[in-house]
Amino acid sequence: MSKIEEFNKERADYNEVLAKYANRQQKTFYGLDAKTYEGGALNKKTKELLGFTSSLVLRCDDCILYHLIECAKSGVTSEELSEAVSIGMLVGGSITIPHIRRAMKIWDEELAPE
Amino acid sequence: MSKIEEFNKERADYNEVLAKYANRQQKTFYGLDAKTYEGGALNKKTKELLGFTSSLVLRCDDCILYHLIECAKSGVTSEELSEAVSIGMLVGGSITIPHIRRAMKIWDEELAPE
Amino acid sequence: MSKIEEFNKERADYNEVLAKYANRQQKTFYGLDAKTYEGGALNKKTKELLGFTSSLVLRCDDCILYHLIECAKSGVTSEELSEAVSIGMLVGGSITIPHIRRAMKIWDEELAPE
Amino acid sequence: MSKIEEFNKERADYNEVLAKYANRQQKTFYGLDAKTYEGGALNKKTKELLGFTSSLVLRCDDCILYHLIECAKSGVTSEELSEAVSIGMLVGGSITIPHIRRAMKIWDEELAPE
Amino acid sequence: MSKIEEFNKERADYNEVLAKYANRQQKTFYGLDAKTYEGGALNKKTKELLGFTSSLVLRCDDCILYHLIECAKSGVTSEELSEAVSIGMLVGGSITIPHIRRAMKIWDEELAPE
Amino acid sequence: MSKIEEFNKERADYNEVLAKYANRQQKTFYGLDAKTYEGGALNKKTKELLGFTSSLVLRCDDCILYHLIECAKSGVTSEELSEAVSIGMLVGGSITIPHIRRAMKIWDEELAPE
Repeated sequence: MSKIEEFNKERADYNEVLAKYANRQQKTFYGLDAKTYEGGALNKKTKELLGFTSSLVLRCDDCILYHLIECAKSGVTSEELSEAVSIGMLVGGSITIPHIRRAMKIWDEELAPE
Repeated sequence: MSKIEEFNKERADYNEVLAKYANRQQKTFYGLDAKTYEGGALNKKTKELLGFTSSLVLRCDDCILYHLIECAKSGVTSEELSEAVSIGMLVGGSITIPHIRRAMKIWDEELAPE
Repeated sequence: MSKIEEFNKERADYNEVLAKYANRQQKTFYGLDAKTYEGGALNKKTKELLGFTSSLVLRCDDCILYHLIECAKSGVTSEELSEAVSIGMLVGGSITIPHIRRAMKIWDEELAPE
Repeated sequence: MSKIEEFNKERADYNEVLAKYANRQQKTFYGLDAKTYEGGALNKKTKELLGFTSSLVLRCDDCILYHLIECAKSGVTSEELSEAVSIGMLVGGSITIPHIRRAMKIWDEELAPE
Repeated sequence: MSKIEEFNKERADYNEVLAKYANRQQKTFYGLDAKTYEGGALNKKTKELLGFTSSLVLRCDDCILYHLIECAKSGVTSEELSEAVSIGMLVGGSITIPHIRRAMKIWDEELAPE
Repeated sequence: MSKIEEFNKERADYNEVLAKYANRQQKTFYGLDAKTYEGGALNKKTKELLGFTSSLVLRCDDCILYHLIECAKSGVTSEELSEAVSIGMLVGGSITIPHIRRAMKIWDEELAPE
């Protein structure tokens, strides 16, 4: 099983537990989370890049990986991703580098289009 | 060995190393850490919920798990925990969700009162 | 005009601008923000203390002041507030102290029950 | 003098002081800061939205305002900005709202295209 | 009155309010805060540089200014300060730059040794 | 293979992937990262302590470990490290403690000079 399959499986598994204990407010929040990245005035690809870079500067590996997968699905190229990474690295500093390492590793192994 | 037993064992093991190198300031800090969550004008349960939510918005899994265990010991119900989670998720944003996933998984497996 | 009246006036004024540009997702978020602090399994007072401490460790003066006002309205005493402050200070570190200074100043001048 | 003129004037004034004390590493960093937002595989507009959202989730008013101005210059519409704001608010949580208030106020007064 | 005199006056004024509401845990914390920067295995100057850089990457203007004043008192030169700034800027990213601007302005006006 | 050998190996391995996708801006950033910690007005040892404490308050395990290794190479003693830890713990709060645990464990096992 690839790292991404493993991530998706664990995510699905954990989401069942989340659903079990979620109150109405949390359910609204999860619904909002899905809605917010749908294409609108900004297209899906731009929104996923925004989600990716936000996750990068806040340094959350799971969030980074989630948006990385969505970036790949939306047709982001390696060069485009690299420019988004540059912005996150510049804004967020060298403290983001370990997260970038892990992101690019999985991009290289399982997601890069070429 | 359950995840919580493992966590407690590792914590005890690491705390020995901490103690070996701790200077006087650090010892004062550790003493303060213990004192601050004792019941007073606010009861133990409320204080552990404050510790839990603070740890959640600052996104530290070990701190979250520590206070989750203390919440369970203080009689927090699943419904009460869920409302504290809602506040942390709202204040801290979707970046907290992976931490909530891990917290609720262990709550479900080893801590939930019912 | 007191500091709190000024804060409330500016907040109301700015919220009008927010509303002008808010899309549906943002409106849902604002509704959620209101709902999450209503009394439920945890009472209003506990929830406002959770909001206050979360805002303190994340170091947002406006959020701190908002929840401080709500804490006062919910009957939080100076001693209870002080214990919530202790938890925030311990968890979040000395970097929170300037925010605590500003919060306690306004608590002292306009909010403290005695 | 408008708020943005004031911001730009203060920024220019302070940058002179920065330059006076900057060593070679800092000068390289400032050069990098300028280069990173130039159009490439991603266009200028997308990059400024990435800079804006990163600044929003990290909650830095000056950085937010800087990128807001650049967004306006790059032709970002109010609807596009609002969708970028939605992502920042969702990812970063309600703690970002005071920053959004201040950003939208100045957008409304001095930057919105319509 | 210079900016630093104003800062010190406000700080003293606010500290009185802090003391009025501080419980025992907070008093211990404040005592610890004073003790931690005293010279020991590391000298006072190195400790103040550590306090300065930590405050910079966590982006707290009041904390930065406090340690900047202490750095000046401990004999830190402009060149040494600039190297500490470089580390903070690199680690913490461009999001720290507005704080560096404000710090260097006051360093230039009131603190720089030459 | 010791933990540090493993860390260094993984780091080298991942850096190859980084290099494969890095654009010019990122390469400049990596060069800057290396340059910034070279001895200058402040010596190498002080700079590594600054890097260590900054990483600690920002809570990045990989960054902490990297600077811990460099601290050991630069001749930092356990007592000096402990004082730097005290500052990070005080400034950053109890949320840093799990990171300190992991850092001191590896310091104890593989890095402490005595």
